[in-house]
Order: sequence, then structure tokens, then C-alpha cells
Amino acid sequence: MRDIAVFSGSAHPDLAAEICDHLGVPLLPTRTSRFANDCIEVQLQANCRERDVFLIQPLVPPVQENLVELLFMLDAARGASAGRITVVLPHYAYARSDKKDAPRISIGGRLVADLLTTAGADRVLAMTLHSPQVHGFFNIPVDHLHALQELARHFRAYDLSNTVVVSPDLGNAKEAAAFARLLGVDVAAGAKQRFADDKVVISTIIGEVADRDVIVLDDEIAKGSTVFELLDRLRERNVRSVRVACTHGLFAADAVRRLSDEKEIEEIVCTNTVPIPAGGRTDKLTILSVAPALAEAMRRIHNGESVSALFA
Amino acid sequence: MRDIAVFSGSAHPDLAAEICDHLGVPLLPTRTSRFANDCIEVQLQANCRERDVFLIQPLVPPVQENLVELLFMLDAARGASAGRITVVLPHYAYARSDKKDAPRISIGGRLVADLLTTAGADRVLAMTLHSPQVHGFFNIPVDHLHALQELARHFRAYDLSNTVVVSPDLGNAKEAAAFARLLGVDVAAGAKQRFADDKVVISTIIGEVADRDVIVLDDEIAKGSTVFELLDRLRERNVRSVRVACTHGLFAADAVRRLSDEKEIEEIVCTNTVPIPAGGRTDKLTILSVAPALAEAMRRIHNGESVSALFA
Amino acid sequence: MRDIAVFSGSAHPDLAAEICDHLGVPLLPTRTSRFANDCIEVQLQANCRERDVFLIQPLVPPVQENLVELLFMLDAARGASAGRITVVLPHYAYARSDKKDAPRISIGGRLVADLLTTAGADRVLAMTLHSPQVHGFFNIPVDHLHALQELARHFRAYDLSNTVVVSPDLGNAKEAAAFARLLGVDVAAGAKQRFADDKVVISTIIGEVADRDVIVLDDEIAKGSTVFELLDRLRERNVRSVRVACTHGLFAADAVRRLSDEKEIEEIVCTNTVPIPAGGRTDKLTILSVAPALAEAMRRIHNGESVSALFA
Amino acid sequence: MRDIAVFSGSAHPDLAAEICDHLGVPLLPTRTSRFANDCIEVQLQANCRERDVFLIQPLVPPVQENLVELLFMLDAARGASAGRITVVLPHYAYARSDKKDAPRISIGGRLVADLLTTAGADRVLAMTLHSPQVHGFFNIPVDHLHALQELARHFRAYDLSNTVVVSPDLGNAKEAAAFARLLGVDVAAGAKQRFADDKVVISTIIGEVADRDVIVLDDEIAKGSTVFELLDRLRERNVRSVRVACTHGLFAADAVRRLSDEKEIEEIVCTNTVPIPAGGRTDKLTILSVAPALAEAMRRIHNGESVSALFA
Amino acid sequence: MRDIAVFSGSAHPDLAAEICDHLGVPLLPTRTSRFANDCIEVQLQANCRERDVFLIQPLVPPVQENLVELLFMLDAARGASAGRITVVLPHYAYARSDKKDAPRISIGGRLVADLLTTAGADRVLAMTLHSPQVHGFFNIPVDHLHALQELARHFRAYDLSNTVVVSPDLGNAKEAAAFARLLGVDVAAGAKQRFADDKVVISTIIGEVADRDVIVLDDEIAKGSTVFELLDRLRERNVRSVRVACTHGLFAADAVRRLSDEKEIEEIVCTNTVPIPAGGRTDKLTILSVAPALAEAMRRIHNGESVSALFA
Amino acid sequence: MRDIAVFSGSAHPDLAAEICDHLGVPLLPTRTSRFANDCIEVQLQANCRERDVFLIQPLVPPVQENLVELLFMLDAARGASAGRITVVLPHYAYARSDKKDAPRISIGGRLVADLLTTAGADRVLAMTLHSPQVHGFFNIPVDHLHALQELARHFRAYDLSNTVVVSPDLGNAKEAAAFARLLGVDVAAGAKQRFADDKVVISTIIGEVADRDVIVLDDEIAKGSTVFELLDRLRERNVRSVRVACTHGLFAADAVRRLSDEKEIEEIVCTNTVPIPAGGRTDKLTILSVAPALAEAMRRIHNGESVSALFA
Repeated sequence: MRDIAVFSGSAHPDLAAEICDHLGVPLLPTRTSRFANDCIEVQLQANCRERDVFLIQPLVPPVQENLVELLFMLDAARGASAGRITVVLPHYAYARSDKKDAPRISIGGRLVADLLTTAGADRVLAMTLHSPQVHGFFNIPVDHLHALQELARHFRAYDLSNTVVVSPDLGNAKEAAAFARLLGVDVAAGAKQRFADDKVVISTIIGEVADRDVIVLDDEIAKGSTVFELLDRLRERNVRSVRVACTHGLFAADAVRRLSDEKEIEEIVCTNTVPIPAGGRTDKLTILSVAPALAEAMRRIHNGESVSALFA
Repeated sequence: MRDIAVFSGSAHPDLAAEICDHLGVPLLPTRTSRFANDCIEVQLQANCRERDVFLIQPLVPPVQENLVELLFMLDAARGASAGRITVVLPHYAYARSDKKDAPRISIGGRLVADLLTTAGADRVLAMTLHSPQVHGFFNIPVDHLHALQELARHFRAYDLSNTVVVSPDLGNAKEAAAFARLLGVDVAAGAKQRFADDKVVISTIIGEVADRDVIVLDDEIAKGSTVFELLDRLRERNVRSVRVACTHGLFAADAVRRLSDEKEIEEIVCTNTVPIPAGGRTDKLTILSVAPALAEAMRRIHNGESVSALFA
Repeated sequence: MRDIAVFSGSAHPDLAAEICDHLGVPLLPTRTSRFANDCIEVQLQANCRERDVFLIQPLVPPVQENLVELLFMLDAARGASAGRITVVLPHYAYARSDKKDAPRISIGGRLVADLLTTAGADRVLAMTLHSPQVHGFFNIPVDHLHALQELARHFRAYDLSNTVVVSPDLGNAKEAAAFARLLGVDVAAGAKQRFADDKVVISTIIGEVADRDVIVLDDEIAKGSTVFELLDRLRERNVRSVRVACTHGLFAADAVRRLSDEKEIEEIVCTNTVPIPAGGRTDKLTILSVAPALAEAMRRIHNGESVSALFA
Repeated sequence: MRDIAVFSGSAHPDLAAEICDHLGVPLLPTRTSRFANDCIEVQLQANCRERDVFLIQPLVPPVQENLVELLFMLDAARGASAGRITVVLPHYAYARSDKKDAPRISIGGRLVADLLTTAGADRVLAMTLHSPQVHGFFNIPVDHLHALQELARHFRAYDLSNTVVVSPDLGNAKEAAAFARLLGVDVAAGAKQRFADDKVVISTIIGEVADRDVIVLDDEIAKGSTVFELLDRLRERNVRSVRVACTHGLFAADAVRRLSDEKEIEEIVCTNTVPIPAGGRTDKLTILSVAPALAEAMRRIHNGESVSALFA
Repeated sequence: MRDIAVFSGSAHPDLAAEICDHLGVPLLPTRTSRFANDCIEVQLQANCRERDVFLIQPLVPPVQENLVELLFMLDAARGASAGRITVVLPHYAYARSDKKDAPRISIGGRLVADLLTTAGADRVLAMTLHSPQVHGFFNIPVDHLHALQELARHFRAYDLSNTVVVSPDLGNAKEAAAFARLLGVDVAAGAKQRFADDKVVISTIIGEVADRDVIVLDDEIAKGSTVFELLDRLRERNVRSVRVACTHGLFAADAVRRLSDEKEIEEIVCTNTVPIPAGGRTDKLTILSVAPALAEAMRRIHNGESVSALFA
Repeated sequence: MRDIAVFSGSAHPDLAAEICDHLGVPLLPTRTSRFANDCIEVQLQANCRERDVFLIQPLVPPVQENLVELLFMLDAARGASAGRITVVLPHYAYARSDKKDAPRISIGGRLVADLLTTAGADRVLAMTLHSPQVHGFFNIPVDHLHALQELARHFRAYDLSNTVVVSPDLGNAKEAAAFARLLGVDVAAGAKQRFADDKVVISTIIGEVADRDVIVLDDEIAKGSTVFELLDRLRERNVRSVRVACTHGLFAADAVRRLSDEKEIEEIVCTNTVPIPAGGRTDKLTILSVAPALAEAMRRIHNGESVSALFA
């Protein structure tokens, strides 16, 4: 079989290094520079010819810079005669742009899927896409992993007898229900309504939460506005405790600290699909690693073994 | 401007005729025949050259036959030098296949979108796609209408002071919430779980429904299994009355009669995106027409006017 | 080399099983189901990743259903990361639609070739396409087998000293001439004219047939209208005996029985590219198997050996 | 409507000029030159922007040179922002390469169709393609004219009471039969067999020709080998007279003179789809013009009128 | 004709406004926002349906952000059924990445051309691409303007009797020679060699410059390293005066001030293809406007008039 | 690994044979013939199935014939199921057509790159493209070799202490400068201006050449007009001696003899990328072989080894 060759862009080299450790292969060097006019240039600094190339790049802030870097890496790998190119997208920010809810906007999740193909991607390994339909935006094979197992393993260590999983949004409630089933607990959901650009109101919570231990589950937390809004509703219903869980801990605008400052919140759990600077962490933050899962999926992709069997 | 030319496949000629009435243009003839070996042949029996061609074909049962007929119509129109070809899809059955929830299945909603493009479609006019993300499966412009206005207009004639809109499924709850807002009433949702192929269980209803007048809202009703399952849960909660509403009334397996036989169900409301044979109707069934909305959208597409303004 | 993985659609599982017997590999399971709204869903129930996948599906009645099933199988195999996908088309019904002999019709043979490519086909293995030009409708490699050798082997067992091969149609006469050369006998042909949709008249036979043993050769027999028409002309010329041979025995409208009822017809010979229900057979019917030829071609495709050498 | 703009390549400027006369538009100038290294350069010397551009270029010898010139003209027109580009192909030499009758050859008729599309062709206007299936090699709209009407008009001036149309080849017999029907006479056909590259043997003639006035009909005559071979068979059967007719009079290797030298041949009739140098003509040669038919088709294409109606 | 609709991205709204003034049409509003996770969203806030849409966006710093914004604008315009979309690229930064001068890098100029096409661009209007070959990277029509006329008009106001145009680099010397011819003066060029990433050495100047008035001409000036290096060589040769001219005045790293501080430099002339903040200007800086030229080209593109005639 | 299979077109079989000698593999037979109507037919006469196919064809005169032959070879190889197809282009004539320096011409270098891809090319191995940007015209991987090392090795045998490398054209001066650096000598360049189609004037030489030993370096020499023009300027400056070097020795119009007749010219050096008939040679001509370099690159491509390392 063709040799494996793993490269990382600028977005999250620590995760790439951890994945390579699990795979037992070196993380190959990439050099990203710029022309004086700010045009990017990327060089893959190891032979790609006929190799089974993996490019690891979560699309995290600065999202647009990281996207273009990834597109240039793809084109470089293709031009260098890579045998096959798999894009590893631990986080795909553009998945949030998955429908046309206003006139004359782009469906970015689909557009960027097409751009990746144009630049040379042969396949994608993604994790917890914002909605499962985003899978269908790609016209190349996608292996779509979820971090629910990792999160469930963490929460099973607690007494869950009085617990309810709460989705902040009806749109995401199916995933919360699946998580609740994994834990053997109930589910509830907030009915969210978006007014202006970042003006969100949760008008009500459907389902029972009073006097319960709540696990708030979302796919990603950025500024945390939704969680804070939900927290107000939960307080009004006198919940006993709150833990917050998500796959993608983007934590913009100092969100970890602001969440940690809320006394009802006992813990914030996320994974390392997104880099979290040491300075942005608090004692309440727990970070689980998805590197073992991503490494195992890459190993199976490389060896032609079933990836769906991973979830069986 | 190029002249308009409207053709209908075999799926729903009545709707096509009604649309043409509203547009004030003739429905042009199509001839569908078969070779002795069952291979289909379609002839568009009016000049298409440089015309602004619309092909009306909801993908209703027999879905696969209707799809292939549509593909042949598209190819015929393109080969006959149509100026532009718009597929009018009042119902897009394949939208149900919008995610890969089992290994080695097709995402049919995406595949069929690509097939339509391959066969020559330049644009699509669709109505109430099963999920809004399906819009992004198409790489050609889509105008996506909803029938919520038509449904709301109907229900506003009733006393809604004690009403709650119930979505049978959390996955569809966002649309139910939007409908509830249109009517100024509350929303609730069933937490559905699919066990085997057609074994669905609604474990609970999140939100208040006891002693209320319920409007069950779904995008489509086929066999009605979900509605029957929901009805059991509603009965247990002593709801006061039930009305069932949907856009796409497929009503397979004699579903209208079986629903009508339930005494709690006072009315079943759907639109005519799907043909409903006279023999399959009951007194409890109300059919609203989407022909005016589709005709107006087609008129605007033809004239280059904003379609999104339709919803303003 | 990548492992071989053979799947069959619903069209002709018996032939697929026979091919797999010859190859010494298992026929892998496929599950075809439908959503309540009639939208098809296909699952390939064995790992395809990096495999050399063959999908066996003659496009026989119901042709359109079988086509869409095949398209979904292709998309599923591609999405499941198949290494290469070969469509095995023992019968390609759409090949009859190979020219535009009326305005504003589709050339279905070309359209469906493009659809198969869109859905993910990498190559095609076909048998006795209605015209040799249909090969050029595909933009992917096609291996095109003929059953003339199988048919010739059968007829060589007879006394051929007084035999003439008759093509019912000038359009197919080249193939009849090739078959006659294989048998070392003369050739003749009917001059056919199509009036209405299924109104065919053979005005004359060009070539000598009086007092001869006739082998009528056609690529496919569906309703048999052409053969019956030819039979009238042959009777007028006092032929001694008639045998009917074809590759694709579709035999619609109880054609085997109706042909068997003709006393001049001594035998009807076809191959098993198309399934023939036990109930549709008579004593005069002989079915030859193409499974060995298809299996050998698949073996060579898989191993990278010359397929054209098969005919040398 | 966009203005029409007609250009001609080097292949047959006289025909282009005659077409433009019929259309009442100027033939716009083209400049073809070469770099010192023999690389071609073509300049369209009139504004193409948003125009309805027609490029007239029969693919006649030197076929490959003329093809590349046409491809460069297409690319130049596209790069110059033509509104629509129609290739007018009065003769399409590559149509002879329409099947794969030997291993590892190209199906040139399909390949060149794809090359024309790659270079920018939006549609094609062709005349008497070697086989009707070649239409399906193009994935852009094709208007396919025939010169049978022009030929029939010419022959109707003669006494046809004793006439039979003879196709030199069974493969072309369908067209001969259609021509015979137009004239109200009988049809016969030679059974041709190709041994070596240009070693053709007509083993027999099927149908009655003895003592008849024969019109030999073929789509194209190049070296005339087939006609000479057929002539031997016709002489053996004591035909009364022979006239030779074809659409494409390529007449390679001094074929007009050699045919004219045969005393049985009374006339050779062709059209001007192919340029025939004055020096290559004889008294027996009659050249009919297809310029009126091509001009009328171009007028209808430009105006969006039905071209198929031309044949009604 | 379709109405014109002009939008600007964030890169250079002042230039867009100036162009619209010349065209006498309004600059239509665009709204660019971001999801909390930094994923961009662009809304074109005026009807695009069937319009002749122009999107003005020079790819200036932040280049990658501006590129992605442009891609989203394109996709939005296409999804909103624009009739035709022209990208106006007054500066195309990626043109610097026009060859593969190191292994395993991308040729960004080609990649980004393909990305623009994928996102929906129908044509491009560019100005002074870094090399003329970059035109060929696009597979859509490109109108390529130059600012040499604007620059020449400015310099003709001076006494040019002792002037020589100097290209800092042999690679750009052809353009300098063309400019020199326009002014009727001599030309010279530096022989540049790139050592490390931004370590440039001009080893010599070929051509006569001693005691002359020098106009240094380059296509773009970013940090100005090359100009400073050239200045050292010019000083050694005792030139009389220096003026610096370029089309694209990127002026990174406070380049205008640093150039202005050099006493030999009397003037720095550029155009407004790139925005220059008021704070970055000095008395020695002259900015010429390309808005009239771009507006005139857009007018001609919209009306289907020759753009090349602009340069005649 | 797949076996290698090397074929040659008609352009330069001697070079192909020499390459195969170096590789130690047989040159497989190709048969090129023509239909009577001049349409080309190519047969690859050895099994291509799953092979690593290399097609060697420099695009030399007759350029258009050789191009079409190559396109047919590509299509034949693809149709015959080649595993991978690499086009080896020792000379790419169309690279001269790399920019649009007149309205309504084609950029042939880009067009032909697209045609090669359409016909089935997977990758290209090229040598000394006219400009380095031509690399970016291909959307498939290109390995771009240069013959500067071969040329430098030859000239290092001479005393270079008084030598200067002169580029006839500023546009090519960068390559001359690189060559001068390899030899450790100075560089100069002619300022060329093209008036009419083949009217070239070199107005001046920038750089010092008086009393020097000149090596004129160009990428290709066809008629030699530029070299003769340069020679006049060099004579005026009293150079001591002249040697002429190029990669591609096309030598049209008896150029070798005419150059050899100039007494200042001591030697003409080229490589064998282009066939030079024995009759066109003189004593002053030296031909260096690029077969070892091409063979080594092909070996590395086949084995998946770095080609860029060849130049390290």
C-alpha cells in the first residue's frame, strides 16, 4: 500500500501532533509564508508522490485564513502527485451556513465543500457536523465521526439518577435525544428564536427540568449567548445543577471565563477539535481528546477497513 | 423576453393544468410511451427552441418512474434547444433521504439533485423540502416555497385561544415553532425514536398539551404511522381535540380513511402538491391549493422579479 | 490487488449468483427498501472500502425501477469509498433509444450513460448492445461482449447445409452477416418500415430464402411483432423451417408461447441476460448461459488482463 | 435578439460565402497564421461580444489541420465573449470512427465531439452524419440535416419506372430504403466485408437488380473502392445503367475521373458539403448545393424557430 | 438588455463608488457579517435576478479574507439567479504566484482562478496582471486592462529629453520597454536575483542610466525592497533624478514614507486599484484614478461593445 | 506496482526508442492509419489495462497532425483501461501561444492543455516550456524539466573567462541569467520589438558585450530570425565570437545551414527534444541528448520518487 503522509496547516498543530503520536508516524513539515502583497504561499516539505496524504486543518478562527491555507495545501499536494488526499476537518465552521434563511446569501457549507473538491480533495474526515445533512453537501466520500461516545464516557462517571439532557435549540434536539439515550436519561429542549443578528431569545423550555441536574448539550459553543439565555430559563425553573457539554469549544469573547463565573455551572466539557489557549482556560473546564478517534479512523481509511464499524 | 412554455409529466397533470390557468398560458402536450422492452420515451410536443421551459413533476408514487420520466423530459428539452429549463417540484420525495444514518447507503436527495443537473435542469422551484438543508444539495438556483401561509390562512378561521401546535418529531420542531408563531399559539413536540425500518416509538411529548386543541403539523404524511403513534400519546394526555395538517398529503395505505376513523381527529388538512384520488377522500379531508403560489413564483421567475419578495 | 466485491440489484439475482459461482466468490447482500413515500433506499451490506466493486444489474422490466436502484447502488458504493466500480449490464434496454428519429425526444442511451457516470460508475461491462455505436455514448471504459459465439456453438450441432441467416431488419443486418460467416452460411434481410408506434411492416425480403432452413437472428425479442411480421413474409416464400435466435429474450406479452404456437418455428434460442420466469417457458425454448463469459470478463478486468483477447 | 456573426475556417470558404449570400449577411474575416514553430494562430477579425456566432468548417482533408483550426476558432470566439457559438459541420469526417471494432482504438466521433465542447461549442449544425447514432456522441444540442430531399429532387427529373436504389453496404441500407421510398422505387443492398485496411469485398447483392436502372446511394465517397467493387457485382447481374449519388463527395485519389471512366456509370451526383476543385471535375459530375438548406437552418436557429419543421 | 447591478465587497468601496459615479448607476448595498464561530456570511441587498451583476473586489490585504468574501458574494449572486456575473479585479494579488519555482507549492494564480469559476464567476475584468500569461489561468473570458496610458499621460507633462525607464527586474522588462516606447525614451533593467524569502539582490543594471532622469516602473510595489535595492545601484551610477511609478500601490510596511524619505526620489506615482489610507500618504505621492477606464470597460461589457477597441 | 507501458506517436520515434533503452523496457508498437476520408485512426498494439502508460510525443511540425494523433492515443489508452496515462512532451509548441496579445485570438497553450485533459491525460512530463507560467495552464500534475544542466555541462568544457550569455529578448532574460549563473559569467539581453507578423527588430542590447565571447541562449530556434537580428547588433559591438544554444532546435527554413554560414558563429548547440533530419545538419551543429534525463524522470514518476530531487 502507498505510504501515509500527514501534514498540518496552521490551525491546530497540537492536535495534528497528537494524532501522529497515536498513528506512530511523523508529522511532516509545512511552510506557510506570504508574498509582500499578502498573497499566501504554502510548501509541503516532504515528498507526496503517490503517498496517501492527510491534511489536518480544523476551520477555526481565523476561519477564512485557515480555509485558504487549506485550499493551497490541497492544490500543492495534488500538483505534487499525491496518490490520494484526505482532508481531516475536526471542525467545519462553514457547516453553520447550511440553509438559505435570508434572500441572496450563500449556503457556505455547500460552497466550501465544492471549493475543497476544486482544490483537489479526494475525501473528507469530519467530526460532529452542525447538521447531519451537511454530509450531503460533499460530492466526495465523507467519514463523519461524532464525539458523543467520548462525552458519554466522561459523564457516566457521575451519578445520573436525577439528570436531564437539555438542548438549547429544537433544531439540535435530535442529537441531545441520542445523547440522553446513551446516558439513559431524559431530554428537554429550548424553543429558540433569532431576532436580530445576535439577538437570540429562548421563549420557553419544552420538557421537565425543575429540580433536576441538567447537562446542556450543544455541538459548538462560541460566544455562548445561547447558553446564557438558556441558563436564565433554567434558573427560573429552579434546576439543581448545570453542566455544559459540547464537541467544539470555540469559546469566543472570553466565553470560558464568563461561563465559569456563573455559579450554577459546575463544569464545562468540550473536546480538543478546536485549540483552546492556556490563557483561556479555568478550573471548571475539562477538555477531552478526540485524537485517538481521529487517528483510528485515519488508520482504517489508510488500510481500507470499515470506518462505520468503529461505531458498532 | 423568451416565451414561456409549460409541460407536465405524468405525475400530476391536474396541478399543472391549474397552474397554467393561473398563468393564462396553455399546458403544452407531452407524449410518454415505451419501447417493447419497457424503455421509456418522452416527446415534448411543442417547440422549445429558446423558450423559457417549465417542467412540472412532483416526485410522487410511482416515484422512480416519475423521476426517470422527468430526466427524459429534461434531456429532450435541452436537446431541443430550450433557452432555460426550470424543474417545478411541488413534492421532492428524495428529500427524505438527506443524511447517511446507516453505512453504505446513498444520500438520495443529493444524488437526485445531481441527476437532474446532468439531465439538463437549469433551476428548480420546490415546495416545503423535508429539511431546509436539502436546498444546499442542488448546485443550481433553487426557489424554495413553503405552504405555511396557505395552512395558516385556513386555521385562522378557527378559535385558536386554546390551541397548541405539536410537531411529531423534534427534527421538524423548528417548522412547527414557526407555524405556531404565525398563529400566535404555543408549540410542543414528540420525541421520536426509530427502532426498525418502520417501527417508530414516540417516547414522550415535551411541552404542554393536556386539555388543549392540538394542531399536529408535519411536512408530509404517508402511511401516517407517526401521527397514529403521536395520537396515542396525545390521548394519554387528554387533549381536547386534534387537527392534522401537512403540506404533502401522500396518504399511502388508505391513510386518509384510517385517520378519519379516529374520533379525536376533527380534520385533516393538506395541499394539492400531491394528487389525491377522489376515492381516497373523506369528509374530514380539506385540500388547499398551492397552484396560485406556484404560478406566481413561475411568473416572477420568468419576468426576473424577486421571488423572496413573495414572502415579505 | 484490491479484493473483488460483487453485488446484485433486484433485476436478475439468479444470473448474479451463477456468475459468482464461476468466479468462486460470494454474492454479497444488498438491501432495497422504500420510505413510506415510495422513495427508494439501497444498502450495500458488506464493506466496499478500497474494494474492486462489481454491480450486476441488467436493465430489464421494470426498467425505470431497476435503473434508479442501480443509480442508488452506485452512489452508495462511491460514498462507501469503493476503490473502483464496474457496472455489469448484461442487458441495456436504453440502447434502443440511440438516435433522434423524432423531434424533441431524448436519446436515452446517451442520457442514461451520463447518469451512470454521475452516480459513480468507473467502467461498464455490457453485452450485445443494440447498435455498436452505443459504446461511444459512454465516456468511461466499456468492455462490450457479444453472445454470437455462444449462439454459434449451439447451432453448429445442426445440419447447416441448407441454412440461411435472416435479419428482420436492414439496420441489424451487419450482425446477421457476421453470424452467418461464423456458421459458414448465407445471409438475407427484411426491409422493415415503422409506420405508427408499434405498427411495423416488412415490405420485402432481400436475399434468397425459398426452400431454405432459416435462422432468424435479432439482438432482442420483446413482443415479437417483428418476428411475426417476418414469419408472414417467410411463409409466402415457402421456407423449409424456422429457428429464432436472439441474445436478449425479453419475451413480453407472452411472446414465447405465441411464437411456440407457430408450427414453422422449431426452436427459440436466447441467453440468460434477461430473467425468464419458469411460467413463461415452453418446450421449444432453449436458454444458453452467458454467465461463464461474463465471469471470465470480470476476472480479467479485476486482474488487469486483456478482455479483447477473449475474442481472439 | 443578438446579432448574427458568421465566420469561416480554411476548409470551405466558398460554401460559407454562398450560405452568407442566402442569409444576406457578410462573411466576417478570419486570419489564420502560424508561429515559426508551426503552432497555429487564428484571429476572428470582427467583434464577437454577445453575438450569435456561427463557425462554418466541414472537417474535410486535411482533416486534422481543419479540426485544430476549428478548435482554435471556438476558443477565440469564447474568449472574445461570444453570446452563443454554433459549429456548422457540413461534413464530419470523424463520424466514420463510430464504434470500437478493434481493441485499443479511439472512437474518434465521440472524442472529437468532446473536444469541440471543451473548446467552447454551444451547439452543432450537421449534415448527413455517417450513422444516426453519432448524434448521441454530442452532449450539446445538434441539428442534423439530411440532403435526401436535394438528391430526390434531382432524380425525380428522370424516368424512374425501372429504377432500384442500391446501398453498397448493409450498414447503410436503412438510408437507401428511405431514399427509395422518397422516389417510390425498390431497394437492394450489397453485403460488404472488410478484410484488411482497405481491402473490401462485396460477396453478394441481396435484392433484385438485373436489367434495372441502378442508383447507387452512399453517404460519402472517398476513394470509391466500395463503389468500384459494387460495380463489378452489378455488371455480373447485367444492370441496365448506373448512377452514383452521395452527400459528401470527397473524391480522393482522382475518384471522379476514375468513376467517370466507367462506361456503365452515367452520372455522379453529390452536394457541395465538401469542396471539389475545378480540376477534379468531369462532365458526368453534378454538384447540388446544400447552402440554401444550411442557411435556412441557421436562420431558424438564430430566430428560435423549429428546425425539425424544416422536414415536415 | 438586462439591467446592470453593481456590488462592492469590503476591499475597496471608494473605488467602487467612483466607478458607479462614472457609470451613473447606484452602488448596491452588501452586508458582510460573521457567525459567532467566525464563518463569514454575505448578503447582496438588492435583487439580482436576471441582472448583469458586477462584483468589484481587488484582492488586497487582508487578501485571504477578501478572497473568501468575494467567493461568497459570487455564490450568493448565482444562487439569487443573476443573469451574468462579472468579477472586477482591479488588483489580483495571487497573480504573483504564477509559476512553480519550488517543489510542492501551489500555483495560486491558477488555483484561485478555478475557485472563482467554481463559485460562479462568468467573466473577469482585470487590470495589469503580474504577467500576461496569468490571463490563460482563467477558463472564462477575461478583459485585461493596463494602466500604462494613465501613467504615460501623467509623465508626458514632464521634460523627458534625458529620461530612461528602468525595470527593477528582467522579468518585467517587456512592460517597461512598452512604457518607454509610449514615452519615446530609452529602457534599462536590473538583473535581480532572489536568495532567501525576502532577500533580493540586484547584481547589475543592464543599459545606460548614468546622469539620466530615471523613471522606475514596476507593476506593483509592496514593501518596496526591490526599489530600495535598485536605488542603491542607481546611486552608484550617479543618476540625475528618480521617479517611481507603478499600477498597484500596496505600500506595505510604511513604504510610501520610507520611499519619500529618499532624497533622490522626487515622486511616487501609482493608481487607485488599491486603497491607500490617508495616513499613509506623503507630499511626494501622486494617485491616478483608474475608475474612468474600469467604468468604460464595464459599460462596454454590459452593452456588448468591443473592449479591445478601448486600446486602439 | 503496475507495469510500465511506453508508446510513441509519429513525431519522434528515435527519441522514444532512446528513452526506452535507458529505461530497459521495450517501446510498444503503435499503428496510425487513416480512413479514406483522411480521418485518423490510432491503435495501441499492446495491452494497456491497469498499466502505467507513457505516451511520448513532442509537438513538432506537423504540429497539428501530431497533436490530433496524441489526442487519439490518449483516448485509446483511456478506453483500453490504462491505469494512469502520462503524456511526455519533450517539446510543447503551443507554449508560444501563452498570452492574448491581440484581440479575438486563442491562448493556444491553455486550450491544448485542456484538450489533453479531455482526451484522458492524467499527468504531463514537459521540458523547457516557453515560459514558466505555462505550467499553470494545466490542471493536472506537470513535471517540468529543464535542459540547462545538459547545456551547461557542454559549455563548461570551454574557457569561459571572457564569456557573456546574451538573451535575444528581455522576455527570456531570466532564464539566460540563470544559465549565466550556472556558468559563472555575465548576462546581457536584446530589447526586441515585434512590428508585423514576422518582422522583429532588436533596437539595442542592454549590458556589455564588446570584445566578448558570446553564448546566445534561447529556448527554441525555428527560422532563426531573432538570432540573425541579434547577430547584426553583436557584430556592431565587435564581439569576439558567438556560440548559439537552445533546447528546442526546430530549425525551420534550413536554419542550421544559414546559421552555419555566418562566420562569427562557431557552434550551434541544441538537444534532441525535436527530430533533426540528417540532411539538415552541419559540422557546426552539436546535439545533446535529453533521453537520460527524461528516462530518469519517467522512472521516478513510475516508482513514486521525487522528481524535484533530480534538480537538487
